[in-house]
Amino acid sequence: MFTITPIKGDIASINGFFADGLSANISPTKPKNWSDVAFVYSDTMCEVEAIFTTNSFQAAALVHYQTYPKDFQTNFVLINSQNANAMTGQTGLDNIKQINKQLQTSYPNIKNPIFSSTGVIGVQLPVSNILKSLDDINLCAKNGDKAAKAILTTDKYSKTTLYEVKLNDGKTFKIGAIAKGAGMIDPNMATMLCFICTDAKVPKSHMKKLLYYANNTTFDTISVDGDTSTNDTVMLLANNKSGVYNQDAFKEVLKLVMQDIALSMISDGEGATKYVVFEVIGAKDDNQAKIIAKKLSNSLLVKTALFGGDPNWGRIASTIGASGCEVFENSLSISFVGVINNKQTTITVYDKGQIHFDNNIELQASNIFATTNFKISCDIGIGDGKYTAFGCDLGIEYVKINSQYRS
Amino acid sequence: MFTITPIKGDIASINGFFADGLSANISPTKPKNWSDVAFVYSDTMCEVEAIFTTNSFQAAALVHYQTYPKDFQTNFVLINSQNANAMTGQTGLDNIKQINKQLQTSYPNIKNPIFSSTGVIGVQLPVSNILKSLDDINLCAKNGDKAAKAILTTDKYSKTTLYEVKLNDGKTFKIGAIAKGAGMIDPNMATMLCFICTDAKVPKSHMKKLLYYANNTTFDTISVDGDTSTNDTVMLLANNKSGVYNQDAFKEVLKLVMQDIALSMISDGEGATKYVVFEVIGAKDDNQAKIIAKKLSNSLLVKTALFGGDPNWGRIASTIGASGCEVFENSLSISFVGVINNKQTTITVYDKGQIHFDNNIELQASNIFATTNFKISCDIGIGDGKYTAFGCDLGIEYVKINSQYRS
Repeated sequence: MFTITPIKGDIASINGFFADGLSANISPTKPKNWSDVAFVYSDTMCEVEAIFTTNSFQAAALVHYQTYPKDFQTNFVLINSQNANAMTGQTGLDNIKQINKQLQTSYPNIKNPIFSSTGVIGVQLPVSNILKSLDDINLCAKNGDKAAKAILTTDKYSKTTLYEVKLNDGKTFKIGAIAKGAGMIDPNMATMLCFICTDAKVPKSHMKKLLYYANNTTFDTISVDGDTSTNDTVMLLANNKSGVYNQDAFKEVLKLVMQDIALSMISDGEGATKYVVFEVIGAKDDNQAKIIAKKLSNSLLVKTALFGGDPNWGRIASTIGASGCEVFENSLSISFVGVINNKQTTITVYDKGQIHFDNNIELQASNIFATTNFKISCDIGIGDGKYTAFGCDLGIEYVKINSQYRS
Repeated sequence: MFTITPIKGDIASINGFFADGLSANISPTKPKNWSDVAFVYSDTMCEVEAIFTTNSFQAAALVHYQTYPKDFQTNFVLINSQNANAMTGQTGLDNIKQINKQLQTSYPNIKNPIFSSTGVIGVQLPVSNILKSLDDINLCAKNGDKAAKAILTTDKYSKTTLYEVKLNDGKTFKIGAIAKGAGMIDPNMATMLCFICTDAKVPKSHMKKLLYYANNTTFDTISVDGDTSTNDTVMLLANNKSGVYNQDAFKEVLKLVMQDIALSMISDGEGATKYVVFEVIGAKDDNQAKIIAKKLSNSLLVKTALFGGDPNWGRIASTIGASGCEVFENSLSISFVGVINNKQTTITVYDKGQIHFDNNIELQASNIFATTNFKISCDIGIGDGKYTAFGCDLGIEYVKINSQYRS
């Protein structure tokens, strides 16, 4: 048995972890001394595991990570925003090596540093600026919030979470994360980054499985624009400093940490005004439910209807029909679930071949769509397959942000 | 040998074809007597072939078409806009049957009428309104332009084209089309419709193959928002009235007709300000080239960069990397081709692992992106696979149109 409690603080509140944000003036257009470099340091070595983007063009930092032996340990991560160091070839990798060399000369405590980047693709790192910023590193800094802020690009706010887990013998461990990602997935701004730190004594052999399990049910369920970046990274660093571990507890709290960050990214979706749950049940199998839920959360026509507050269920039906999955007009049902006048309300607009969209139902559906947080539930009506995806609307701000960024 | 000449006129200029637009007041929000019903009539029976949407939820009109025997002939198509008659079940089909009955009672010349609809999904047809409009049918009308206008939804302008083909023995035939589709593919507004009429003596056995061939290289190459409607229809009607046929000539002119309509749809893309050609060469095979070109033409991040006039090649590279196709950073090249100062100009921004994006190149690239019509050419550098897709930008107007439609 165990209890999981969200607590105040940040990753630097975890035993043995330190973090800070620095300024390297990486972007030519950001104000001088814009916070654009962060580090995470542990005073003992960490087991590390990461999930990277499936993009064929992995950024230099990801290539560098993979030069370490499979079971390497580390105690340091350096992250920069404003420049993805992607599509930068051998020069991009050489730049990391140069930064690496100075880091380890200046700070002999740093072992096997990991690099991570986010920002514009196809521009070489301003290495001398970054080298200069390294002079400001204080390995005793407890500024996790500053680190969380330094890794942002188009995010409106920083993403951070922290939990304490208490086992039934009274022993505790902590776990927390910092992340960036507004739009989750934006190859230019670029990437979702998430660094999860814990003082739990997680066996290396468990880490990959646990990380992928939690990822499947959190980051993989969200979508803002369906693009996949060159830099996407989810990383787990465990310094084992508490000496405490319980697999069930860790599995549950890791998922909570990643869920917090995922929901925070959706709420911060570029220009998003609504946060919507797409629940698909009754599909042929879970995989078909996933395909349908993802199609719904990615459909431009559904997303613009959400933005307009229009309960246009025909677009939802059509997207389901276009999914390529096994679906039948006569077995499909579509409902909207939201809160109207402080009361949870379910409105079924289409039920197994019957249209229920009279003026009264339309008014109630419009009331749900006028809120900022509701669920679209689709029962395919043929099997046990289910999946829940999380998405947001697509509004004028998304276009503004993404048409004006970089220039 | 043959010559193909674009000529003035419309589908009603083709021997034996008649067309007109009527008003049935289908939409409760459109002004009274809005043109919303069209017909196409041939005074002799036509061979007919059609390609329909792959959406599992096919609209009632499509279901009705498929109740005719495989090799049926027809002389009449009735098309309504403002209501897709989709997700309307047995009632939707019964409504067509009722309209059908009155049509054939009032006009005994009409045989095997075909129905087609476009508009909002999930609303039953206002049958009595449509029945009333049938009184205005004049089977001798030569108003192809009015018919083309009556089938529009969010289109800014009507789509019509006409050609004459002259064979080397001096014999001629005509072919023309009317179409709707702004956004090509919009399940709500709903669908792309294209009706191609010819007086050529096309053998029924050739029609399917010819139609699919032309479709693959025209409508299948364009994309506005990547959605697939419940009503998409491309239909070929051949009344054989000229007695003339030449397979090579017909194959070529059919492709020209469909290309005209496809380009017209792209230019009329909802809110689009730019028309962009995505050329992919050097892919592993043609299929991989197609996947990459389609990913590029559908990427929200690429489309918003186009709207912003930002030659943000990093987004293009990242989309290629995320395509799932065989691609390598060191063999990829990306160029922009456009007209600057009345001169065709090619700017290579990334060439086999080398970034060529200095200030001068960026300025030239920006100049190309500031125009309304240019090409993005991507050489994957590993094989002979090639494909060209056609797309447009995604701007604020797209969001406005699609968030405000229906309400």
